[in-house]
Amino acid sequence: MTTVAAYAAPAAKAPLERTTIERREVGEFDVLIDIKFAGICHSDIHQAREGWGEAIFPMVPGHEIAGIVSEVGPGVTKYKAGDRVGVGCMVDSCRECENCLASLEQYCLKGNIPTYNGVGKDGEPTYGGYSQKVVVAESFVLRIPEGLSLDVAAPLLCAGITTYSPLRHWNTGPGKKVAILGMGGLGHMGVKLAHALGAEVTVLSQSLRKKDDGLKLGADHYYATSDEQTFRELRGSFDLILSTVSAPLNLDQYLSLLKTDGAFVNVGAPEEPVALNLFSVIMGRKTLAGSGIGGIRETQEMLDFCAEHGIGAEIELIGADEINDAYERVLGSDVRYRFVIDTATI
Amino acid sequence: MTTVAAYAAPAAKAPLERTTIERREVGEFDVLIDIKFAGICHSDIHQAREGWGEAIFPMVPGHEIAGIVSEVGPGVTKYKAGDRVGVGCMVDSCRECENCLASLEQYCLKGNIPTYNGVGKDGEPTYGGYSQKVVVAESFVLRIPEGLSLDVAAPLLCAGITTYSPLRHWNTGPGKKVAILGMGGLGHMGVKLAHALGAEVTVLSQSLRKKDDGLKLGADHYYATSDEQTFRELRGSFDLILSTVSAPLNLDQYLSLLKTDGAFVNVGAPEEPVALNLFSVIMGRKTLAGSGIGGIRETQEMLDFCAEHGIGAEIELIGADEINDAYERVLGSDVRYRFVIDTATI
Repeated sequence: MTTVAAYAAPAAKAPLERTTIERREVGEFDVLIDIKFAGICHSDIHQAREGWGEAIFPMVPGHEIAGIVSEVGPGVTKYKAGDRVGVGCMVDSCRECENCLASLEQYCLKGNIPTYNGVGKDGEPTYGGYSQKVVVAESFVLRIPEGLSLDVAAPLLCAGITTYSPLRHWNTGPGKKVAILGMGGLGHMGVKLAHALGAEVTVLSQSLRKKDDGLKLGADHYYATSDEQTFRELRGSFDLILSTVSAPLNLDQYLSLLKTDGAFVNVGAPEEPVALNLFSVIMGRKTLAGSGIGGIRETQEMLDFCAEHGIGAEIELIGADEINDAYERVLGSDVRYRFVIDTATI
Repeated sequence: MTTVAAYAAPAAKAPLERTTIERREVGEFDVLIDIKFAGICHSDIHQAREGWGEAIFPMVPGHEIAGIVSEVGPGVTKYKAGDRVGVGCMVDSCRECENCLASLEQYCLKGNIPTYNGVGKDGEPTYGGYSQKVVVAESFVLRIPEGLSLDVAAPLLCAGITTYSPLRHWNTGPGKKVAILGMGGLGHMGVKLAHALGAEVTVLSQSLRKKDDGLKLGADHYYATSDEQTFRELRGSFDLILSTVSAPLNLDQYLSLLKTDGAFVNVGAPEEPVALNLFSVIMGRKTLAGSGIGGIRETQEMLDFCAEHGIGAEIELIGADEINDAYERVLGSDVRYRFVIDTATI
């Protein structure tokens, strides 16, 4: 066991504070990572405040991890000390079910093991990236290619793959009209990735406040959803709308913006049920779907794609003592576009 | 103009009664059809009673039409007098939009012209199949292959294509597990078609009352949705659930029955909005979709498929004076499985 400095929420809704945690010994197929950067994801806040149901405390959040390998177990073949690596939302899965065998570990039929707020195969709680070291099975460690700085790479491990996977699954590419709904941590990655994939990209954001940023990141068009005219003008326009928002939406209104056979795909989701008129999908054979992060193979593909296209997250680097303030700013949509913790400050 | 005997609802919610209507002259590209049989679709009742909003009266319902060509216009090339033909839910469309050009006339961007309760290109109301003759543009007339009796073919024009189109679109075939939700007019066709397409077919019906019929029509399994055990047992089972019901459903519960990447496709729909927890589609990348009838090309494909596989609807043949009683019985789910009017009795 190794004692490691970390930031943890001692109880639901309590502020995070500095503490220490124990990391397991490096097993045969494990990689020990010196964490350099950890992104702050909105879901860290949901979980630290038990917005998604009962959670495990103390909680060390963080599933957007970038760092350097410092030690590997004797059975490890993919990584060696000094390698630049990342860890995302999961650290293991059953590895045997049909989804795991198809590298859809995120949909593991027995449930994947989340990077934090879960229980590992050793029966111990998992602790996330707001810490200085982590031990992870090599099969769930990603390689961060040269040319991608570790700080802007960290958020790719959740915000990047969560948008990349559905964009690819629903065939984003040249000739496709894609709308990104919401211009936050996920949304700004959606814009960069959809643009790099060759689609015509429209941002649908509550206001035009971030329009300049959106266009700079690759959007071709930018509309405010607070303007009713937007819905009249864009009726029947999109092949795909990727919704990154977790506020309740008028789904029928958004479905009307799709072309025939278009898809509205949720990666954000409100905690409460939403209402839907089923005629909104029957007319035009439309799809309302969802997508959760991505598998390990696809996450590596995404990182390689980002390196090739020079894509990282837009970040605001903070010290560990700013985490609690940062949470408040995330809740107030006051971040452009992702807080990343410099873990040297923990 | 030709005067034709018909059954019409003189006003919303009024009983249907015998009357006469005028049919237009046979134009250059028109086909005059002696209607032999007309199916009664649940949507006839919705419209005659203004359940779907304001409607046009007097209304002659009926969009499941089978008959014999008695005259063709000089420009008609596909049909001649004596041919066995059908007409479904639409009698024209703009023919110019991208959907029409793709033979998705049901999704015509300018709106297709419904067989009844619509307005034709001549500005006159359209009247449906509860009548003795109809004039239809040849492009919207289907050929009923030899070997398919006209009476059991009539319901294929709506109930058949409405289930065939989504079954095909969502790749029903060998190795796929398909559930048909609801065992009525649409549902019983869904069972026959999914079975003929090679899928493993499960009926999900409120009770086991029609179980023997379901298994005889081609279902491999039959479950009652009134039994909570059904949802535990079938969790994660299906590639596709085709919902033919128009009662409000617990969508989250049904989405839990899908495999990863599975689709729940609505061809029936309640008039009221339904509630949905978006996590039900995010977990497992599931699809909630809809589908409306089918295009003309696909409707012909369906009729040819049915002839090849010996598939017709299960019908109860009635005289025109039984229409009002039949409506009540449809509303009470007391029909196995489609009423078809012998139009000689009008």
